[in-house]
Amino acid sequence: MTEHLYNKYVQHMTLEEKIAQLLQLAAPFYDEPGDDSEITGPMEELGIDSNTKRAAGSVLGIAGAEKMMAVQKEHLAGNRLGIPLLFMADIVHGFKTIFPIPLAIGCSWDLKLAEQSAEIAAREAAVSGLHVTFAPMVDLVRDARWGRVMESTGEDTYLNAEFGKAFVQGFQGDNLKDDKSRVAACVKHFAAYGLAEGGRDYNTVDLSERQLREYYLPAYKAAIDAGAEMVMTSFNIVNGIPATANQRLMRGLLRDEWGFDGVVISDWAAIKEVIAHGAAEDDKEAAFKAIHSGVDIDMMTTSYVNHLPELVAEGLVDEAMIDEAVLRILKLKEKLGLFENPMRGADPELEQQIVFCQEHRQVSQRLAEKSSVLLKNENVLPLQADQRVALIGPFADSGDILGWWSWTGSKETAVKLGESMQKVSGDPGNVVIAKGCGIDTLSESDLAEALDAASAAEVIVLALGEASDMSGEGGSRSDIRLPEAQLELVREMKKLGKPLAVVLFNGRPLDLHGIFDVADAVLEAWFPGSEGGAALADILYGKVNPSGRLSMSFPYSVGQIPVYYNAYSTGRPKPEEETDNRYISQYIDIPNEPLLPFGFGLSYTTFAYADFSLSSDTMTATRPLEAKVTVTNTGSQAGTETVQLYIRDMSGETVRPVKELKDFRQVQLSPGESREVVFHIEESQLCYHHSDLSYTSDPGRFTVYVGASSRDTQSAMFRLV
Amino acid sequence: MTEHLYNKYVQHMTLEEKIAQLLQLAAPFYDEPGDDSEITGPMEELGIDSNTKRAAGSVLGIAGAEKMMAVQKEHLAGNRLGIPLLFMADIVHGFKTIFPIPLAIGCSWDLKLAEQSAEIAAREAAVSGLHVTFAPMVDLVRDARWGRVMESTGEDTYLNAEFGKAFVQGFQGDNLKDDKSRVAACVKHFAAYGLAEGGRDYNTVDLSERQLREYYLPAYKAAIDAGAEMVMTSFNIVNGIPATANQRLMRGLLRDEWGFDGVVISDWAAIKEVIAHGAAEDDKEAAFKAIHSGVDIDMMTTSYVNHLPELVAEGLVDEAMIDEAVLRILKLKEKLGLFENPMRGADPELEQQIVFCQEHRQVSQRLAEKSSVLLKNENVLPLQADQRVALIGPFADSGDILGWWSWTGSKETAVKLGESMQKVSGDPGNVVIAKGCGIDTLSESDLAEALDAASAAEVIVLALGEASDMSGEGGSRSDIRLPEAQLELVREMKKLGKPLAVVLFNGRPLDLHGIFDVADAVLEAWFPGSEGGAALADILYGKVNPSGRLSMSFPYSVGQIPVYYNAYSTGRPKPEEETDNRYISQYIDIPNEPLLPFGFGLSYTTFAYADFSLSSDTMTATRPLEAKVTVTNTGSQAGTETVQLYIRDMSGETVRPVKELKDFRQVQLSPGESREVVFHIEESQLCYHHSDLSYTSDPGRFTVYVGASSRDTQSAMFRLV
Repeated sequence: MTEHLYNKYVQHMTLEEKIAQLLQLAAPFYDEPGDDSEITGPMEELGIDSNTKRAAGSVLGIAGAEKMMAVQKEHLAGNRLGIPLLFMADIVHGFKTIFPIPLAIGCSWDLKLAEQSAEIAAREAAVSGLHVTFAPMVDLVRDARWGRVMESTGEDTYLNAEFGKAFVQGFQGDNLKDDKSRVAACVKHFAAYGLAEGGRDYNTVDLSERQLREYYLPAYKAAIDAGAEMVMTSFNIVNGIPATANQRLMRGLLRDEWGFDGVVISDWAAIKEVIAHGAAEDDKEAAFKAIHSGVDIDMMTTSYVNHLPELVAEGLVDEAMIDEAVLRILKLKEKLGLFENPMRGADPELEQQIVFCQEHRQVSQRLAEKSSVLLKNENVLPLQADQRVALIGPFADSGDILGWWSWTGSKETAVKLGESMQKVSGDPGNVVIAKGCGIDTLSESDLAEALDAASAAEVIVLALGEASDMSGEGGSRSDIRLPEAQLELVREMKKLGKPLAVVLFNGRPLDLHGIFDVADAVLEAWFPGSEGGAALADILYGKVNPSGRLSMSFPYSVGQIPVYYNAYSTGRPKPEEETDNRYISQYIDIPNEPLLPFGFGLSYTTFAYADFSLSSDTMTATRPLEAKVTVTNTGSQAGTETVQLYIRDMSGETVRPVKELKDFRQVQLSPGESREVVFHIEESQLCYHHSDLSYTSDPGRFTVYVGASSRDTQSAMFRLV
Repeated sequence: MTEHLYNKYVQHMTLEEKIAQLLQLAAPFYDEPGDDSEITGPMEELGIDSNTKRAAGSVLGIAGAEKMMAVQKEHLAGNRLGIPLLFMADIVHGFKTIFPIPLAIGCSWDLKLAEQSAEIAAREAAVSGLHVTFAPMVDLVRDARWGRVMESTGEDTYLNAEFGKAFVQGFQGDNLKDDKSRVAACVKHFAAYGLAEGGRDYNTVDLSERQLREYYLPAYKAAIDAGAEMVMTSFNIVNGIPATANQRLMRGLLRDEWGFDGVVISDWAAIKEVIAHGAAEDDKEAAFKAIHSGVDIDMMTTSYVNHLPELVAEGLVDEAMIDEAVLRILKLKEKLGLFENPMRGADPELEQQIVFCQEHRQVSQRLAEKSSVLLKNENVLPLQADQRVALIGPFADSGDILGWWSWTGSKETAVKLGESMQKVSGDPGNVVIAKGCGIDTLSESDLAEALDAASAAEVIVLALGEASDMSGEGGSRSDIRLPEAQLELVREMKKLGKPLAVVLFNGRPLDLHGIFDVADAVLEAWFPGSEGGAALADILYGKVNPSGRLSMSFPYSVGQIPVYYNAYSTGRPKPEEETDNRYISQYIDIPNEPLLPFGFGLSYTTFAYADFSLSSDTMTATRPLEAKVTVTNTGSQAGTETVQLYIRDMSGETVRPVKELKDFRQVQLSPGESREVVFHIEESQLCYHHSDLSYTSDPGRFTVYVGASSRDTQSAMFRLV
């Protein structure tokens, strides 16, 4: 299958050219003058020469059709065999049209819209000259301290897998070669990056292989099975060895066991960082370990370029191993059609038309509407158009609502909450905007202005949150409350005794004490993207009925972390009723339950569940079950309910989670309307990894839960025989 | 070796008698009248009959020679074959003479004194009729939220192993049969109980087998190699299976791989709790799994008694497996000399003489002196005898200083801090005592009284802390600060502008914000045991120079947990100098370092380290190194320094900790005195578990650190060739 590529290219390449093909340089390397007689800047720093640059295989972080085309043109002019560059970048939740952060998208439970967001991101990226996006990130996350939870769809294996597939399909479409408006997807971060100890980015990860396979790997696997062309290594260790140098993980599991034959790329400088990890004495050993682990592309270090030649010369690395890596990269270039058309989708004219176009922005707005989660509402929302509203807080008039990983987006063009509310209310004078405080500063004058505004209003809306750089990569926090300045603002506003709603902009589940217990309504907006303000204003004024459901638990406090719905029972579970028994698994100072559970979210209407039944109380491998439930909109507005199906295996060879999401349906219901929702339950959904890692089901009792969240369910039992 | 026991007993026992031998009942079962015609109380609750009780093998929680002798006598009268009962109990840090909690003992770094404390505990327990203590607990602990950290010696594998050996030696001596003042030790909790997720007791444990073997198992292994007769299963799961039902762990690793042939006992009700874990559908399956896992004694459930008969009858359990368990129990009884003398050490007269005798209490006091850790001291301590002192706080006049696991001790006879300070100062009038506040209550009158006392004083000493039931089993806290009432007291006292010292009584490392940054001196007393007040008064007044060193890190805050000194490096370690690079492993709001590191502790004198050298810069398997350093007492008082030796393997097949304690020496130095301390470093100390679990060393570079704490060190390098 790759023989022709070998014949046409590889056999003609020098060892140095092959190795350079494995190198990925970042954009600044291509900002240098074409005349490279004098090497300065990053190239000098990294110690690479212009020959190597000319032979390099891919570039990271260049966006913009003209720029890309210029770089590609120059590259081809200098590349002896005319092998085009691959252009890659982190296009995580949109290119110029920024969508809500992935954690918010997770809360939409809307796979179609998620796919569409990826498709639009791909379209904008492709027309701007990109070929590969470093997404989706499908790391399972259970620690709200970690800054990169914003980049994941949440704490659930099944949901992450579903979203992973949707994103891959959206990015890649069905034919990368013919459909030049798509880009290749790179699933990351392989593996289990989300388990960074203490929620501190890049920190130690340790878990049993059983746990790895049961909870962490399925989403990567699903994305790969959905056709993702690339996989990125994670920064963390797995079983004591950095993923990037982990032969058992990368070659053994990913390539040999799963059969992944796409391109594996290191994360930024991760090969060299094997030294800092203490798993390689020097750069040469790091390169040795990475290439043996099947890592094809060395992102932004010269470990491969500087050391693979001697490793081959010394017989420590077989040149065939290099060839294999080169072939995988060339195969991807071929799949993308780059040999025929090195410029591929890059098109400056089309770029002007479609990037950040109205159609794309509308989808972003729709996704923001579906991603927002109404956490509390005691007769405050929706607002009436003619109510006098004081909109107060650092996010009242802020464009910092795109979230991390939106480097191609523009905060300046983000639709702000204040202006949208003024627009939607119909009379700008109805919505008075005041800053109130900064993210973590509170001045007397700001507070005074806010108190003035609030005093004149009928209802107070506070727009609070974290600055976008308080989450994302490198954005780990040990304290997951809002900064004290904002909590103080809440207290001051509460004193006025007026209806108080809070809209939250943030990249992680927060400890909401001081907000949830104080405000009458809380709307979790996350970082909603380019059209965030418009989406939120529509929700606040009831033009859109919120339907988001949390895809990650909100801990009671940071001291409760990790807390997640699909935990194992203990031998001494806490009973639901009060008890004075000390010897149960609990904290003496807080509940075991998170403040807000996975799957939770309110609506402006209400839904009732009735007639829950199973088609049988026994199941066999060949005779699946049906679970039926009738959901009724019992309120006075149309709304969307996310009907969730959970299963508990009551007893296994190993312990089993107290609940596991197995399926869900979104139903739109008019007031008074009922719908029967039918779930099919098959034996394959009951399989799990046993202690010997075998993946099978066990006969025995199972409980099926159907409901509106992981906490609010009805149940029935069946037996697998 | 056990053939005679088989011939004499087992072959004559009915299956029911054998199975009853595996049953352990708690003390209340023996509070019932000898006439058991009417079964009531716990026996009825548990559904066991008097025949079973008569045949039971052991009892838990009876102490007191007369009571024990009466129970044993009645038991023998009813037992068909005359097999005596084994009497067991949790004697964790003393019997009546309560020693500091194990975490405090860990901070003494004094193995001899630790051994002596166990010897005394054994002596008091044995004379009171006990044969086995459920100690030592050698669980590695890294999460201060967990209540049972108080029962461990801390976060270090090596130190825990050393203490584990010392405790076993102290409890057991060299000959349990002849030395009736000793008791058998039961190492617990096998395995990795200390890793309970979220620090919530009994919660899920998950870790790689490599990590289990590298960090968690060595201390159990050391205690077993030191001769511990018993092992207790842990409540947690290991690789997805409750330890008590974990065949691979208990039979595979413990018995087959390690060759442990002593008695394995479940923790309280742990066999039955396999059902709640969801790893057994019913009691019968739980019994099946536990016996197959090699668990000999069923503590306080009837899983074995009620289900082993039918399991044998159905051929699911081989009767030989039961015989094996019975024989192990009988062998222990024989080792303890119970067949010859069922009363063994029980002696009401001797009990009166030695239990809580002056000699024992003096050792407790010495250990309390060595366990206290001076955390901060800015010219406040030691106090002068003639200073006017206000001693304020809930622990100023409290006997709640024994800590958890001191059920045989008496708070009433505990030596309180206030009375001791009045005594040591020479004039009771010099020390005015006020409550100030409760553990978590602050009344105006208490505060006013305290302010009065403080206003009249030259120096304020606050005695603060956690009630003893805020740690220990079931005592997990999500918030590891002192309660707000006490922090408020500190703030109020600080306003007076006087020298302020704080003495802390607590069972875990605390978040000391609001104390450490406010007080001029902080003395960590832990729960110091029966003689705590006397020990602390001597330290406060300078009669004893404090020498404790933390055996567990004090986190900066709960959001930093887990934090421990022997962590792995990451690929992006935080540099020591300031940096604006976001992409390093850090929190954006707090340091990576704990507030107070492992090994840290101050003295009233100062020590200088000089002339650190290695005997060579290379080492081989057959040519060990010597590391020498000269330590000088540079202050004006005699003092004890704990010289610590750490090693870092700079690069391994797997990542290696940034520092690992390998050895230490305590040196007592007079003012001006110097001592050369010599450490021997051998290749065996450089071994670790590789990814394939092999335990070997790797050639390469190593750094040796010598110093006063894990943070305050000097270093040198060598190469293993």
